[in-house]
This record gives sequence, structure tokens and C-alpha cells, in this order.
Amino acid sequence: MTSFDITILGCGSATPTLRHEATAQVIDLRDKLYLMDCGEGAQLQMRRYHIRFNRITHIFISHLHGDHCFGLPGLLSTLGMLGRTGELVVHGPHALEDFLRPILTVFCKDMPYEVRLDLIDPTQHALVMEDRSVSVWSIPLSHRIPACGYLFAERPAEAHIRRDMIDFYQVPVHALRAIKQGADYVTPDGVTVPHERLTRPATPPRRYAFCSDTEFLPSIVPLVEGVDCLYHEATFMERDVARARQTFHSTAREAAEIARRAGVKRLVLGHYSARYDDLTPLLAEATAVFPHTTLGQEGMRVVL
Amino acid sequence: MTSFDITILGCGSATPTLRHEATAQVIDLRDKLYLMDCGEGAQLQMRRYHIRFNRITHIFISHLHGDHCFGLPGLLSTLGMLGRTGELVVHGPHALEDFLRPILTVFCKDMPYEVRLDLIDPTQHALVMEDRSVSVWSIPLSHRIPACGYLFAERPAEAHIRRDMIDFYQVPVHALRAIKQGADYVTPDGVTVPHERLTRPATPPRRYAFCSDTEFLPSIVPLVEGVDCLYHEATFMERDVARARQTFHSTAREAAEIARRAGVKRLVLGHYSARYDDLTPLLAEATAVFPHTTLGQEGMRVVL
Repeated sequence: MTSFDITILGCGSATPTLRHEATAQVIDLRDKLYLMDCGEGAQLQMRRYHIRFNRITHIFISHLHGDHCFGLPGLLSTLGMLGRTGELVVHGPHALEDFLRPILTVFCKDMPYEVRLDLIDPTQHALVMEDRSVSVWSIPLSHRIPACGYLFAERPAEAHIRRDMIDFYQVPVHALRAIKQGADYVTPDGVTVPHERLTRPATPPRRYAFCSDTEFLPSIVPLVEGVDCLYHEATFMERDVARARQTFHSTAREAAEIARRAGVKRLVLGHYSARYDDLTPLLAEATAVFPHTTLGQEGMRVVL
Repeated sequence: MTSFDITILGCGSATPTLRHEATAQVIDLRDKLYLMDCGEGAQLQMRRYHIRFNRITHIFISHLHGDHCFGLPGLLSTLGMLGRTGELVVHGPHALEDFLRPILTVFCKDMPYEVRLDLIDPTQHALVMEDRSVSVWSIPLSHRIPACGYLFAERPAEAHIRRDMIDFYQVPVHALRAIKQGADYVTPDGVTVPHERLTRPATPPRRYAFCSDTEFLPSIVPLVEGVDCLYHEATFMERDVARARQTFHSTAREAAEIARRAGVKRLVLGHYSARYDDLTPLLAEATAVFPHTTLGQEGMRVVL
């Protein structure tokens, strides 16, 4: 099976600590790299984990708080210095333009590659990007400023040809492509052999959802239903729920509640408040609601 | 003697590596902190070295290349989150305005403290800032974009009162302040006791010069003459001098040549190109010209 994995570069929150880096993740899907948020230091984290960041083609920004985007100027500049030529697309809410345009003007005017900004409406659940490997959808979130998560859905693979049946019916090579894509086969004698007899079903497409930052928001449940992995912010514990409400963040229990209702396969927590030295109580709080929960941490690779 | 020391937070150059951080230094003078450049990750480095960065009152930016200023957005935001109220002044060449103003508008509009930009002319050797502890002067440098170094000159201390002479001449307390500042003392009998008899000379003021980034520039020699410490960029070795010329950087030998001609007390090298894994050849090249040379490194504290 082709690769689909997520490397967590940072899962801290706004106040920087030495325990956690600012938010950033790299998604590796069929050897193409996508960057999810880009907090300060993300480029150094990618060096640390030996991620060849010149292969990134798309960056998705959840919202314009510094701990999710202040690594962009450095990364974009470094890519220019390393001689990148291929276009890079940065997707994100509208304020991305106000942030990045002056940076590109002041620092990046002689860069050998193009940075294209794709300004999205974070209040809509809409297709943001699609290539041969993946469809990326926005997930409207509720935070202090416009924010959205992203759903990475692997493009459906083609059905697997059954070699024995192809031999049996003597299907010519030129007919295989159409069969893989769902066509039946009609023999020279005019007999129709159904697609299902000639193939095994394709591997079901895998899906990953990134939801940070947001208050507890049950409206995302149908959008992330059954995903292979949900990364959901868990800035606070329940004992600090008042602070969570005030700052439009979630508690670990609330993250687990979303995972439970959506029936996801796996939940990864992150975006921890700097106030917690020890995160095991957050994990305990979440697993009480949704057992298959993991504490995200820097350098962790989640394989789907 | 009161403190005057420099902590190096980063002494790498533009391409980020895991060996060196981007340029930033903290100067601690009489317990006031001044930040010199602010590359990406500077705030985290300050956490690492237990520097109470809320005590920073002035930041000096040498030039608007990302490896010298991309840590500013994160630092300014964090100071806001930590509840700072005192004004912070950021000094630097004109492009600082184009860089920081949009950041302040998008990210910092609700901050509890004021960020004041002091746009300076980097082509002039001029007084940039003065408080009770220090005078800071710009040092015009020659780089690909407008750039200047900074000279930190401790304000002259007052002369030390000689207790034995004060007793001998029965000088009243109210006369001491004037004497410290240079006045003679006239006794009730009308006898003038010269200032020099009543005092020992003040400790000579200490001076620190920061020169990065620049091509080899002998015109700075008179400006940094005799300083207690000169930090001078040494991006390249002599064998890569062609690349140094092309990029308006200096070699280690050239940095040492400036130090030698200026008769400084101590030279610290930095801003190393990412191409050198081992820096000892740079040190050898410099010490051949100017023996009292040190390789700057992250976490190093230079005490003047």
C-alpha cells in the first residue's frame, strides 16, 4: 500500500515552551508532501526529522494566529535559497494575504519560484485542493478568529485486476484500463463479463482530519465521520473548561467526545496549553470517553 | 563592577542548520536587556538559556534579511501574551517598517503594550539610542541591502570618592555628588581641593561592537577602535573568498584583519556558512592574524 502518514512537527499552543514546538505537521501521501500549519521553527523541525521539505507542494493554514503561521516567512525564504523552482500554493483564510503579501514583497522578490496564495472561506465545508493523490476539504471551526480544519481524503484507487480471470476470459491488454475503472468486459462472442468478476475491490481510500484550533463543535462530527485518524486540539483539561470557553479552545474530554460521536478509528491530541507539565491526565480524560486516543508529540509519525 | 555581558543565541547564517540558530544576541548591561537581531527561534533560545526576555526594552535590527529578523513576530506576540505593558522600541533600517507594520496590524492589534519603530539611516554613524546605562551608535556596513552594525558604549561612570580624603578635608555629604561628577571642593576657609585629590578615576566605560552582515570594510576600523569585544561576521573561509565577494560577506581572515587594525581587545566570530561542519579551520585562519579570537557559539556568554 502506498504511504499515507503524518509527522507531527509541533503540538504546543501559543505560549512557547521547551517541551513543545508551535503547530505544524507534514503529511506524506504517495511521496508527495503537504504541510499543515507552519508555526515558528517548523523548517528546523523538518531538518531535525530529515523531511525533504522541497517536496512540499501545498501548505494549508488553519488560521492566522502566530503559533500556526510564523514559520512561513523563514520556510518560504529557505526554499528560495535552496533553488526551488516549482510553484508552492499556500491555502488559508483571508488574513493570510495581509500577512504574507508584505513578506513576499519585502523578502522574496527575487525568489526563483512562485508562491501562490489560495484564499479560502473557512466558514464553508468545500473542496480546497485536489490532485491525483488527494482531495482536501475545509472543515469550518469555531475560534476567536476565522479558522478551519482540513480533511485529507485519499483519491479512490482503481480496482485490482484478477489475473486469473483476465487469463480465463483472455481479456486483451488494451481493455484493462477501462475494467480497472469500473467497466464490464464484452467478449468477441458478445458475452458481457461483469466488472466485479474481473476485479477485487480497490483498497478503501484513507482519510485524515486536522481540527485545530476550535471550541467544542459537534457540527464537525458528520464531516469527520469514520476517518482513519482525527487530530483534534485539546488545549485544556476539563478542570480548566472555563478558560477553554473563554479562549474558544477544547478540552481533552471534548476532543474525545467528537472522536466518539464521529466513530473515527484513532484520535491524536495536541495543542497543549503550556500550563501542563505532565500530559497523562489529559490522556486519561480522553481515553475515558474514546479509548483509541494517543498524545501527539514532536517527531511522532502516524501511519494510516 | 556592574554586569555587561553578551549571550549569543544564534550565530548561523541564512540557510538553517541543526548546528546553528539564526542570528540573535542578548546584551545584559546593568541588568537591562537589549536584543541584537532576532532570527527565527530567538524567543525559544531565550527560554533555553533562562533569559527573562520581558526585561528587553530595545531591539536593534542590523538589516532586513530573514535570518536576522524572522523571530520578531513571534517574540512580539509572546510578550503581548505574557502581559507586557512597557513600551518596546525596535530600531532598524527603513524596511523594518514594511516588515513589521503589517504584522503589528494583523496580529498585534490587541496587545497590552506599545511597539515603537525607530527607523534609522544605516549609512550614518549616529547615536541611535541613549539611556542611563548605554549609548548605542550605528556602524554603517556594506551588504547586499542596507545594513548597519551597532556599537554599545557604556555611559561613563562617575569618579570613585576617596573616603580617606573626604574625612581628611571634612567634606559635607551634600558636596559629594558634584565632586563625583568632576567638581573641585572649596573648604569653608576658601581653600580649593582639586577633584583629582578627592577621587580615583572612574572605571573606563566598556564598549561592544556588533558587525554583521558585511563585506570586508576597513572604514569601520576607526569606529570600533579599541572596543572590549568585537563580534564580526565570518561567513566564509579564505578559500571561498570569491563567494564572500559575491554575497557581500567576510572571511574569517578579514574579520581578524579588522580586529587587528582596530586593536580591539577580543574578537568573536559568527554567522558561519552552513557549508562548514567543522569551524576550527575558520578559527585557525583568524588567529593567524589576530590571536585573541573566539568562535561564537549558541549559549556562549561573553563577559566584558
